[in-house]
Amino acid sequence: MTQDTSAPLYIPILGPWLAQELCSMLPAPFKPLDVHANPDYAGVLATHADTIRVVICSTGGISVNAQLMDQLPHLALILNLGAGAESVDMAEAARRNIQVLTGAGINAVDVAELAIGMMIALARRIHLIDQEVRQMQWGRDRQPVRRLAGRRAGIAGIGAIGQALAKRLDAMDMQVHYFSRTAHMELPWQHHTNLLSLAAEVDILFLALPGGTATHHLVGADVLQALGKDGFLINVGRGSVVDEAALKEALNHNHIAGAALDVFEHEPHVPSGLIASNQTLLQSHRGGFTVEAHTEVLVLTLQRLQHAFSL
Amino acid sequence: MTQDTSAPLYIPILGPWLAQELCSMLPAPFKPLDVHANPDYAGVLATHADTIRVVICSTGGISVNAQLMDQLPHLALILNLGAGAESVDMAEAARRNIQVLTGAGINAVDVAELAIGMMIALARRIHLIDQEVRQMQWGRDRQPVRRLAGRRAGIAGIGAIGQALAKRLDAMDMQVHYFSRTAHMELPWQHHTNLLSLAAEVDILFLALPGGTATHHLVGADVLQALGKDGFLINVGRGSVVDEAALKEALNHNHIAGAALDVFEHEPHVPSGLIASNQTLLQSHRGGFTVEAHTEVLVLTLQRLQHAFSL
Repeated sequence: MTQDTSAPLYIPILGPWLAQELCSMLPAPFKPLDVHANPDYAGVLATHADTIRVVICSTGGISVNAQLMDQLPHLALILNLGAGAESVDMAEAARRNIQVLTGAGINAVDVAELAIGMMIALARRIHLIDQEVRQMQWGRDRQPVRRLAGRRAGIAGIGAIGQALAKRLDAMDMQVHYFSRTAHMELPWQHHTNLLSLAAEVDILFLALPGGTATHHLVGADVLQALGKDGFLINVGRGSVVDEAALKEALNHNHIAGAALDVFEHEPHVPSGLIASNQTLLQSHRGGFTVEAHTEVLVLTLQRLQHAFSL
Repeated sequence: MTQDTSAPLYIPILGPWLAQELCSMLPAPFKPLDVHANPDYAGVLATHADTIRVVICSTGGISVNAQLMDQLPHLALILNLGAGAESVDMAEAARRNIQVLTGAGINAVDVAELAIGMMIALARRIHLIDQEVRQMQWGRDRQPVRRLAGRRAGIAGIGAIGQALAKRLDAMDMQVHYFSRTAHMELPWQHHTNLLSLAAEVDILFLALPGGTATHHLVGADVLQALGKDGFLINVGRGSVVDEAALKEALNHNHIAGAALDVFEHEPHVPSGLIASNQTLLQSHRGGFTVEAHTEVLVLTLQRLQHAFSL
């Protein structure tokens, strides 16, 4: 991409995530157009359509679909900030030869750290005990809790998050198994070709899968039944992977011991049945929410813009 | 120790911890005397004083002091269930040539697991976010949180708990430092000869020290000041190591960022200032509280009794 560098390079910000930071950070000649909360975003884009070659998007923002691509005839690059590009029509972008780059992997460590904390908090009832102590009810909770060392952990999805998780679980002396469509021969952990067999084998099941139709409701009544009454489910991937109605049923009937969830089917909606249960630990899609991950995403985005415009 | 095995071997249970389990588990010829909650325990002990050679005790129970030893002239072995034998007068036992065995090391992994969970929960605000989601306040908390990988962790006390902790922190890509009076040349981590230098060097300070006069209020205003405004304190050792008044001050004035405490100076009392703070995570001395640790303590106690009586 070459460009008259004296003219401003308009970069629409289509998603809410880090919009404010991008607007204050992107230096000239970039000119951020923060349209993510603008009902007339189409009008703003039309004004600058002749010069727009890159958009920045994130899940939950304006969809980067065929209609939007029609509006931006010079669009050549879509920068999706997060790991999953749910708001981008990938097939349509491919058909039009528009490149899509994502932030996959950047916050893998942050997500893995939260997942480990969620596992221990759920298993050791940290959040419940904290409340109990604050209510001057020291020692009220007598529910037996288990040591994690020696137990079996399963990871569905063995990308950057899954591998960061596995390394940490290894050091906790847990036996690590994973599920992925293809085996990764370079990895030392036990591979499973289907999720049901993984769930049946382990005590704690981590979900670190992408969203989309391929993984929709992959975890339903059968997987939860296989995980079993002493089993814990930890989801730090995408909410759509879990059938929340089936999960509520499984918790209500003690088919599993508990669930720690950072993601939900219809965020920010959290089903009341999951809120009412004391066998749940609930977070608000905080996996990648660290200062370091945000900074790295911003720096990478700037580098990608500079590279795209050969600056 | 030899004994007429047809006669019952009376074993006083002096502490509350696992008293019920010991009473239901110890087989003949052992005859548990559960006196820990009996105001006339002295009378019960006097009745059997001629045959009592072993007592089982734990912190928070009847003190095994000179007076009690006077009452039990044949006492040869004190089995303290926990790691710290705070209720035993060790000097007096040594003077009388009474052996003391403790459960040190048995629940080190369990304590380390809880400590890792407490660190992540505190740093990532897991307990606060859980409450926020349950109160339908998704996204309210905007406090910046930090990635743990790359940060520096310090461990005061490098016994079984400290080493189990260090191994786990290593796998989280944290830099591990420790404080102990003598360096352990076999350990790969950075040694500090005083706690103040350790606190100044690290972002997260774990306390895994025993109680007693040698460690009393080792963590006061100076150590907290050295830990610094971004620093987290995690105490899974003994409450007496921390000057709670100084800790409250440090939290109130943001001299440190937060504290996660499983132990307190006067358990089960938790100071209201620590309860009122949203920079604390509070547990109820749950470090060693797992089914596995309890079972191992019971099995070890039985083995020690059998060995003591050559059964």
